[in-house]
Amino acid sequence: MSLSPSQQAALGPLFNPQSIAVVGASSNPAKIGGLPVEYLLNQRYPGAIYPVNPKQERIQGLQAYPTLRDIGAPIDMAICAVPASGVMSAVEDAAAAGVRSIVMFSSGFAETGADGVRAQNDLRAFVKESAIRLLGPNCLGFVNNHQGVYATFTPALKIAAPLRGNIGLISQSGAFGIFALMLAQRRGLGISHFVSTGNEADIELADALAWQALDPATSVILCYLEGARDGEKLCAALELARAQRKPVVMCKVGRTAQGAAAAASHTASLAGCDKIYDAVLRQYGVYRAQDIHELFDIGYACSVAPLPVSDALGIVSISGGAGVLMVDEAERVGLSVPLLAEAGQQAILKRVPFASAVNPVDITGQILNEPALLADAVDTMLEHGQYGAMVSFQAVTGISPQHRPLVTELWARVRAAHPPLTIAVVSLFDEQNRKFLEQHRCLTFEEPAAAVRAIAALHAFSRHFARQPVPVALPEPVAIDRARFDEADALRLLADAGIPVVSSRVARSADEAAGEAAALGFPVVLKVLSADIAHKSDVGGVALRLADSQAVRAAFVRITESAARAVPNAHIEGVLVAPMIQDGVECILGVTRDPVFGPVVMFGLGGILVEVLKDVTFRQAPFDVAEAHRMIREIRAWPVLGGVRGQAPVDVDTLAETLATLSRFAAANAGSIESIDINPFIARPKGQASCAVDALVVSRTSRALTDED
Amino acid sequence: MSLSPSQQAALGPLFNPQSIAVVGASSNPAKIGGLPVEYLLNQRYPGAIYPVNPKQERIQGLQAYPTLRDIGAPIDMAICAVPASGVMSAVEDAAAAGVRSIVMFSSGFAETGADGVRAQNDLRAFVKESAIRLLGPNCLGFVNNHQGVYATFTPALKIAAPLRGNIGLISQSGAFGIFALMLAQRRGLGISHFVSTGNEADIELADALAWQALDPATSVILCYLEGARDGEKLCAALELARAQRKPVVMCKVGRTAQGAAAAASHTASLAGCDKIYDAVLRQYGVYRAQDIHELFDIGYACSVAPLPVSDALGIVSISGGAGVLMVDEAERVGLSVPLLAEAGQQAILKRVPFASAVNPVDITGQILNEPALLADAVDTMLEHGQYGAMVSFQAVTGISPQHRPLVTELWARVRAAHPPLTIAVVSLFDEQNRKFLEQHRCLTFEEPAAAVRAIAALHAFSRHFARQPVPVALPEPVAIDRARFDEADALRLLADAGIPVVSSRVARSADEAAGEAAALGFPVVLKVLSADIAHKSDVGGVALRLADSQAVRAAFVRITESAARAVPNAHIEGVLVAPMIQDGVECILGVTRDPVFGPVVMFGLGGILVEVLKDVTFRQAPFDVAEAHRMIREIRAWPVLGGVRGQAPVDVDTLAETLATLSRFAAANAGSIESIDINPFIARPKGQASCAVDALVVSRTSRALTDED
Repeated sequence: MSLSPSQQAALGPLFNPQSIAVVGASSNPAKIGGLPVEYLLNQRYPGAIYPVNPKQERIQGLQAYPTLRDIGAPIDMAICAVPASGVMSAVEDAAAAGVRSIVMFSSGFAETGADGVRAQNDLRAFVKESAIRLLGPNCLGFVNNHQGVYATFTPALKIAAPLRGNIGLISQSGAFGIFALMLAQRRGLGISHFVSTGNEADIELADALAWQALDPATSVILCYLEGARDGEKLCAALELARAQRKPVVMCKVGRTAQGAAAAASHTASLAGCDKIYDAVLRQYGVYRAQDIHELFDIGYACSVAPLPVSDALGIVSISGGAGVLMVDEAERVGLSVPLLAEAGQQAILKRVPFASAVNPVDITGQILNEPALLADAVDTMLEHGQYGAMVSFQAVTGISPQHRPLVTELWARVRAAHPPLTIAVVSLFDEQNRKFLEQHRCLTFEEPAAAVRAIAALHAFSRHFARQPVPVALPEPVAIDRARFDEADALRLLADAGIPVVSSRVARSADEAAGEAAALGFPVVLKVLSADIAHKSDVGGVALRLADSQAVRAAFVRITESAARAVPNAHIEGVLVAPMIQDGVECILGVTRDPVFGPVVMFGLGGILVEVLKDVTFRQAPFDVAEAHRMIREIRAWPVLGGVRGQAPVDVDTLAETLATLSRFAAANAGSIESIDINPFIARPKGQASCAVDALVVSRTSRALTDED
Repeated sequence: MSLSPSQQAALGPLFNPQSIAVVGASSNPAKIGGLPVEYLLNQRYPGAIYPVNPKQERIQGLQAYPTLRDIGAPIDMAICAVPASGVMSAVEDAAAAGVRSIVMFSSGFAETGADGVRAQNDLRAFVKESAIRLLGPNCLGFVNNHQGVYATFTPALKIAAPLRGNIGLISQSGAFGIFALMLAQRRGLGISHFVSTGNEADIELADALAWQALDPATSVILCYLEGARDGEKLCAALELARAQRKPVVMCKVGRTAQGAAAAASHTASLAGCDKIYDAVLRQYGVYRAQDIHELFDIGYACSVAPLPVSDALGIVSISGGAGVLMVDEAERVGLSVPLLAEAGQQAILKRVPFASAVNPVDITGQILNEPALLADAVDTMLEHGQYGAMVSFQAVTGISPQHRPLVTELWARVRAAHPPLTIAVVSLFDEQNRKFLEQHRCLTFEEPAAAVRAIAALHAFSRHFARQPVPVALPEPVAIDRARFDEADALRLLADAGIPVVSSRVARSADEAAGEAAALGFPVVLKVLSADIAHKSDVGGVALRLADSQAVRAAFVRITESAARAVPNAHIEGVLVAPMIQDGVECILGVTRDPVFGPVVMFGLGGILVEVLKDVTFRQAPFDVAEAHRMIREIRAWPVLGGVRGQAPVDVDTLAETLATLSRFAAANAGSIESIDINPFIARPKGQASCAVDALVVSRTSRALTDED
């Protein structure tokens, strides 16, 4: 599950081409085949440009060629700007000419229905065989902004050219991508590399992401995603970005049922389950932005500032109100706002007797009379406090000529003294002040809460990058020697995998059951055992709280007869006898197969929380114990495991180890196991045995099952 | 609880003065006393301006006066720009001169500690007695932007003057308020009236809100609130705004524990409980903005567009991706995106065979070749669908000269044909296109999700304004004839108030208990009855599931003896015998007193949901049954009441009536009752009796109580 350097290198001729041909080139820059030529000329693209058009000798001042083969020179990348009907002959020409990559604007493929899907499959097969990398079809192309490669036909870039910078932008939607590109320009954000992936016949968003992860000009990657075809490739690309310490911010649409339906109808791609995307993106340290403003807020922050080395936020404000707004937001997003040390507080109160000095430090309107107070407060905070980040609310000082030193001198000095500190200044800014601060790697925001959110996002990246990815060693796959599992089989399978399970026994007669019960200790539970009965409770196949041998014998007869009556053809092997566990916290541990991401582990508490509040969390398998701990703490009902109403906290370490073990088992047996449902897993305090009490395992070959409900 | 017109009229001389004096006026426009004079002159304020300064004859070209009394003409409003030490003599001068209102910039009052509080109290007492309305002290003043009244000393307005418009802005924080005012200017938002309320010795945010509610130039009111001293006045002002159909958007800080602490230290005001603020603001139809951008996004929408008449949203997009993003957001914020009627879908597919035609309507990149497609799609949607609002994602057409008709002609025509339709166009815009659309009452947004959120907010206002406020008639207060209530008293009190309670009996002997149990029907529960025992379970004072007379007799002895042993001095009156109810859904109904808003009713489900997830909701008492229904549906666990796992839904009507009855009882007895805790209230399906099973009532005079836990 990794993208090899050679795979990435293969995209070099596409995204950083030394020569570009334009098939369907036009002399008219308003046309789809004219625009890229004009853009390349205007951008002074330094490589060779070869217009291809059999009807013209010169195009926009350049020599034109009838075919790609006629060029007679290496062609790294060909832009294909011909109608769908002309695509196959263009691609054949490209293969014959040794073209290494194609950007295909042409529409009329998978987005148009069954015929288009067939045409696209043919196209894909052809380029694979010819070792040509293909972007598109039905895409708006890409921009390599530092190399002057405008391989796009959108006319929008004539209105305003994207600024140069270190932000990579990748969109599965063309119109949306160009809109975002233009919005970035308006916001003053500099772009290194923009890609619209269109129908993704060959190159997917994940490929572009991996390329940007290794692109020295890109330091943060923003994505617009509707759905990934290849979850493994996406995860590998995200891991590559993590290894390069490049934050990834993603706007993934299809969050809701109606949204997912609309996305599916739009892209005809396998939408997958949004909750799983959400979990996997979290697992891989991606910041999931809820809208485009957030995408850019966080992307901007990553592009400018160093990542905070701790979650401690120092807040200074010349308005008490803004200080409150920021500490509210800090608490909400999980940053700490530690009290300033007493000596620091005293130092501030000495200067401004009516200040709030605890952090947030509010130096009040007194700043208007004595501007130096701000710098003194900041110095005092940095002397007496340890912060990963500082945020300073400075009202309108950023557009006030008389307060310019509060923006420039102050923060340039702080930056010089504290290179790793994340600094955000909140104010209105004129362009000059804004640029000054950003050149000093200080963030500028107009919105106090947005500044705090961005700092929290930076800190999350910082934590994620600090994690050493522990290679998770998978066990040998087990031989799934049967199509159907009864409950005893299922529990044995899990026990063999290292999951703690309840010590149950199989009994084939009433006497055997009574004997096993006595050996286990009363009270016990009896469950009818049959691979043919899916829902034991529904057929009267379960007896709870059996207190003595007599009760066990009677129950054996009752539940086997009842089950046999209800499912006459069932092969009833006997019953499972198990101790009746009545304490502990009921959890649900599950494994399902996601069409995009493969085996996925679910965790939640039993009862109403899962059913009504959907208070569950997911992870792609496999994962390590540390990830399992994070997973457990994600559910809203987490405090229940920590002990409420005087209950002792459960043994979270065992729970986390169990989840990690389950994830390794699921990953190792992804080929043979469809799903696992451990419900309940009883989590108990340390020193008492936590265990799976009931389990349902479904193999991929058959849906034979055993369960209890 | 209403603000009389005369109370409001009393603020006319302040906020819309015919004459203004400036006490402490200066010839130097950089000074606190010079700035207002310069502003008034520059703004060509049409009324009289009287600089007051004993040391100068003329100030900034105007005749100056030694004192206010020397002016010899009516003075509607005096700006007080002198240090705290000079305030009292200035105010005495104002009273003598018949000044009707004062704006006091001077700091050095309650914000500086105990001495300052005393000085401010003296100031308040003096102006009350002199019938002078006072804004401040320690405030940045106000701006009446249509009358040219810049009664402020902030130098920021020299950098950029607020645009004129219909948005009122009120801030308890001066620096924050000016920042917001300047930010509004940057966003192109027009302001009618800006107020900074400072220390609120007399005029509170609620007074300014009420004035703007009646101000014809203001049509939407944005507030920054840290805390209200007078909850009743705030609610009355909000009700006044509702009656005038003026949306109120509020940024209330102190959401979190640390934020509330910071707010309290900042304003020294009683912070109150943020959860209660949240509930009351919702109850009064206020949109609570989480940050300043949201404050302005929603405020902007209210200032431009008509409110949607239904929750049905039509989405048209030239990018499928943006369509998905918008439908995601619509579902999240509770707007419906109804399928387009089949005939409409067919009409669209006839034009664009590969469009998504269901709603969102995605007319695809085909728009680039055939711009008229957008207008056709919009016309088709409006012909075949019924929408309260339409949102159109148009990528970069708003800055594209060739696509200007898609912005202007199209929407001008739609507006003319559909005057009440809420329209939002999402694109990048040049100034001309933006203004054109806004003049046609169409919203412009750069962010698709923000547009949908704004439409949802407008729809919430629309629903709120459509509600006929039902006057809630309060019952007569009950005579609280005792300081302490035992459980039997508490249940009787609630039963008399009209709350359904369990049919319990008091028994003073084991035989009596057995007799009552037989009369009620087994199984029963016994609870020791004593006004001296707060927590019956803790002292072994409760026996559950008693199945026969023998068990009841034994339990009587056991629990009374156990309680007597545990609380030797307790007067034990006997026991309460009640049927053991084992079905239904356990709810918690409570009443507490909020320091700001008075009696408040709480609702939630019993068990872990309240304890761990804090899944409860509040309302200020009293409220009607419709409000109670909204309240019940607000908790996350609401589906439990609707019936899960095959359970019948509970009788929500009875639950809502009970909450409304409880709220009336709480309001009528606010003077005598401190708190009520009905835990549990068992909600059962229609036809079965829902009832309070246990109750705790605490009077205000004493904290005698009875409960069960």
